[in-house]
Amino acid sequence: MKEEPQSVRERLIRTTGQLLRSHGYYGTGLDEILKDSDAPKGSLYHYFPGGKRQLASEAVRYMAGRMAKRMVDDLSLTADPIEGLRLFLAGRANDLEASGFKSGCPIATVTLETASEHSDLCGVCSQSFDGLKQILHEHLSRAGFGQERANSLATLFLASWEGALILSRAHRNTKPLDIVAKEICAMIGGILGKGQNV
Amino acid sequence: MKEEPQSVRERLIRTTGQLLRSHGYYGTGLDEILKDSDAPKGSLYHYFPGGKRQLASEAVRYMAGRMAKRMVDDLSLTADPIEGLRLFLAGRANDLEASGFKSGCPIATVTLETASEHSDLCGVCSQSFDGLKQILHEHLSRAGFGQERANSLATLFLASWEGALILSRAHRNTKPLDIVAKEICAMIGGILGKGQNV
Repeated sequence: MKEEPQSVRERLIRTTGQLLRSHGYYGTGLDEILKDSDAPKGSLYHYFPGGKRQLASEAVRYMAGRMAKRMVDDLSLTADPIEGLRLFLAGRANDLEASGFKSGCPIATVTLETASEHSDLCGVCSQSFDGLKQILHEHLSRAGFGQERANSLATLFLASWEGALILSRAHRNTKPLDIVAKEICAMIGGILGKGQNV
Repeated sequence: MKEEPQSVRERLIRTTGQLLRSHGYYGTGLDEILKDSDAPKGSLYHYFPGGKRQLASEAVRYMAGRMAKRMVDDLSLTADPIEGLRLFLAGRANDLEASGFKSGCPIATVTLETASEHSDLCGVCSQSFDGLKQILHEHLSRAGFGQERANSLATLFLASWEGALILSRAHRNTKPLDIVAKEICAMIGGILGKGQNV
């Protein structure tokens, strides 16, 4: 191994994250991970004694951290909280189109594949979704919503986004994401504008 | 083969549909399909010369048809169009909980696994989602929305439901589905009640 140990480990995690986005957990083979990471064969079990499952857990955590960072960055691009939500969704639609509709949400795919198993891997997905929801919750609280409503609307926003990503990938166009962005931002903005039931 | 040919074929499709719901396309093995279908080894390629991929396409179509029927049935349980939407989501939350959070939406899982491949299988998912959206579109049109808004809100409803299913499976509770049902029905009902921008 010519590389620094840390660097091979990180490359394995990043590569696995990308493969989970495109093909999911069961659709990603160890050979593919090693090849795309340009990593020596023994390195996977060296760094991840728990094998593919441990590596996938680390990869979901890593990707969730990246998504969380992007969410925080986009939401703070403007002082208008609704415009921040719109910019975040528009950015994700652009990313999806630029990837040729390959780069979905790895948390969603791994959840759907592993939720039946009561596994640690699905637990990591649950925590990852909670992390994203917390960012949305805080954003909506700052915008003026009370704790309960901020929590509900954060859940709705996260669900709508994840669902729209599925529809956009299925149809290979960003229309579902564009439509959902327009409707959900108008709805949340409408509630805030009315100043009732916030 | 003691069974009627048609019956083995149908059993293979139904079993595959259930396995796709729980584990997805790549997480479902041919051995598991044959075992759970109680089907002779040669029967799979006999009825599905295109192998697992053809069988999975038929299974997604079959499950989408079942989901569409349930949607039509639930939406027509009451004369109140918003209450119909609420009943449909409540029914799906009950089903999910009763299955121990195993029975997700096979269209969503297969989409996320295969969207990168430009495959026929993903095309079947795209058509299946369109079929469900069309039912929602017609329901919202009958409720009083114009064509464009009915299309937008049908997309939002479908996306929110699919996303909430993911969150509920990840967390192993129906709260995300319950919250999304409450918020989305209040929002759509609110627009209809105001009679503006419908």
